Amino acid sequence: MEIDLTPLLATLEEEGVDGYLIDDDASDSDQRYVSGFTAPDAYQTLVTADGDVHLLVSGLEYGRATKEAEADSVTRRAAYDYQELLAEYGSYEGTVRTIATFLADHDVDSIAVPRNFPTGTADGLREQDLEVTVESEGVVEGIRARKTPWETNQIRATQEANEAAMAVAEELIATAEIEDDGTLVHGDEPLTSEDVTEEIEITLLRHGCALDETIVACGPDGADPHNRGSGTLEADELIVIDIFPRDKETGYFGDMTRTFARGDPGEEARRRYEVTEEAFEAALETVEAGVTGSDVHDAACDVIEEAGYDTLRSDPEAETGFIHSTGHGVGLDIHEQPSVAPTGGELEPGHVITIEPGIYDPEVGGVRIEDLVVVTEDGYENLTEYPIEL
Amino acid sequence: MEIDLTPLLATLEEEGVDGYLIDDDASDSDQRYVSGFTAPDAYQTLVTADGDVHLLVSGLEYGRATKEAEADSVTRRAAYDYQELLAEYGSYEGTVRTIATFLADHDVDSIAVPRNFPTGTADGLREQDLEVTVESEGVVEGIRARKTPWETNQIRATQEANEAAMAVAEELIATAEIEDDGTLVHGDEPLTSEDVTEEIEITLLRHGCALDETIVACGPDGADPHNRGSGTLEADELIVIDIFPRDKETGYFGDMTRTFARGDPGEEARRRYEVTEEAFEAALETVEAGVTGSDVHDAACDVIEEAGYDTLRSDPEAETGFIHSTGHGVGLDIHEQPSVAPTGGELEPGHVITIEPGIYDPEVGGVRIEDLVVVTEDGYENLTEYPIEL
Repeated sequence: MEIDLTPLLATLEEEGVDGYLIDDDASDSDQRYVSGFTAPDAYQTLVTADGDVHLLVSGLEYGRATKEAEADSVTRRAAYDYQELLAEYGSYEGTVRTIATFLADHDVDSIAVPRNFPTGTADGLREQDLEVTVESEGVVEGIRARKTPWETNQIRATQEANEAAMAVAEELIATAEIEDDGTLVHGDEPLTSEDVTEEIEITLLRHGCALDETIVACGPDGADPHNRGSGTLEADELIVIDIFPRDKETGYFGDMTRTFARGDPGEEARRRYEVTEEAFEAALETVEAGVTGSDVHDAACDVIEEAGYDTLRSDPEAETGFIHSTGHGVGLDIHEQPSVAPTGGELEPGHVITIEPGIYDPEVGGVRIEDLVVVTEDGYENLTEYPIEL
Repeated sequence: MEIDLTPLLATLEEEGVDGYLIDDDASDSDQRYVSGFTAPDAYQTLVTADGDVHLLVSGLEYGRATKEAEADSVTRRAAYDYQELLAEYGSYEGTVRTIATFLADHDVDSIAVPRNFPTGTADGLREQDLEVTVESEGVVEGIRARKTPWETNQIRATQEANEAAMAVAEELIATAEIEDDGTLVHGDEPLTSEDVTEEIEITLLRHGCALDETIVACGPDGADPHNRGSGTLEADELIVIDIFPRDKETGYFGDMTRTFARGDPGEEARRRYEVTEEAFEAALETVEAGVTGSDVHDAACDVIEEAGYDTLRSDPEAETGFIHSTGHGVGLDIHEQPSVAPTGGELEPGHVITIEPGIYDPEVGGVRIEDLVVVTEDGYENLTEYPIEL
């Protein structure tokens, strides 16, 4: 994939430094993105002022890196006498000296580094007379926020797996029987949040996706947006299901929430569902390049406040109502730029964002509806095709 | 869980600093271990010279942290005017100033930090006149290497899930039919590495475990210890299965490898299996507190070299034979201290290590046998109960 490092190069020029260095493993999404490579142990990616990308990797990763990485050069540590430096200076200083030699080899005397760059490496390089400054704006995260068409397709593919998992969850709830005490059961066994989560995870696995956590939250559990949910599912209650899987191959996330109910959750719950759906539609209609994340958030808040519920805009201390932001960017991280919140800046074509208003109250339960969309010049394209219906 | 921070406190005293600060999310195992808490976003853990542990967390995590964290105090950022500082100084400097206030509140003027501490925070705190030095020996990783009985039990539980997954994989291979061309099939479908991996993952999920990767490598694939394996499995070939799951709740890993074959892999393959098993037994017999990881590695190399195969000890450039180290520590990280390799230091009671010799050659395939054991004063206790048999 071709990535556009222009904003990073502009930063290097402004700061008057020779290069930008990342020292991390591929669990750091900036590292994975800039290097076009993944490895479980730390490696170094250098972007020089001419826009070239240079990798420094272990001998173990060298063969794979030369084949897979999207880099202008790949060098193995052994090329800089790594083992000799380790033997002479120990693992810590030996590694730092190897990196210093790699930088010198590319005529780099001064570097900018991300905020999370290891202090051990930064201080070590300074002792080797390198100039190290922190790039504090998160310029690479800004670049990552604007997805290429290829990236958007990867996110769409993950979202399709997500839809398959949501369908399995919905089916489990829809086909459960209702006991006299309102408990949902399958056969003789109560249907629990954990059961539904497990089937979601298995479906995602079969689609090449993994996830750390899923939310299947019934009744009062669903009224806390961060509660994962546990225990038996009940009829006549709202059940919030929020799934955010990651494709194991590409690393791109999907994200979707639906709210279900068996039996009758009550008039107030149904009203909240309608208001949430209206807020969802209003926010979506606002989305286009040039509007701010804050504008989109305001559109959702307008609807919810008008219906008589609190938001964090109307009451920053609110504990019920719409008590989170409207959305966030999604990509190699599940939460990334841009923000669809009071502080959210201008949306740009290629931004992939969630729209996920909700209304919460322990007395009634929680409602949340969430789709994933890509911002276009004059609106958005929805990457989600799952029906919205209580 | 009670943890023993004595070595860290000794380091603080040696360095003459007031405290040790971690600034990371719980994907950093040192953070998770010292704080006794997990959160997906960065939080700060301060160990003061008196051995007390103090947490600084977001408002979102505060309730859970006060309940769950094993800390002497938990403070929310808002207590240090976080929002006001953000508004005045922006997200980067505002956060740093909040941390500086937290440190001042605990009378800390100077801190040691881990090597991977964020340079953004380190440099920012220095601008607030904090003294920041890097602790370069990895003292917390050293503490983590010595497991408490509770931790050993968590690892044993993960290993039990691992055994269940290995049994499913073995059963799939054992019950496959063999086509005329040697392909393994179930029904009309060829049995692939990916199929077996999927069933392993599903079994682990049902046991509350997750994993990023599994190795199911047949024939020449298995001769490369880092190859995950792909495609149809064949009779008369060695099949290496290496599973390293993590319990989703506790975070502790298991790790086990077995080598299987359907049909007859040939006399040379069978001999290599016997030699590997002998090397495995020899290494295990060497394990006890006081011997070094290097001694254990030597015991495995002795057997393999004597049988006429190369090792990295006999030939550092070897590409066939025993071409990796004998083992590594396992805990909250899949690879951690101590090392069972040429550089491996003294084993201590409570160290949990793998013993995993292997012999590799693309012409014959790969053999590896791996158990997970805990080091005791006079030997080891094996945390693995899966039979060893080709």
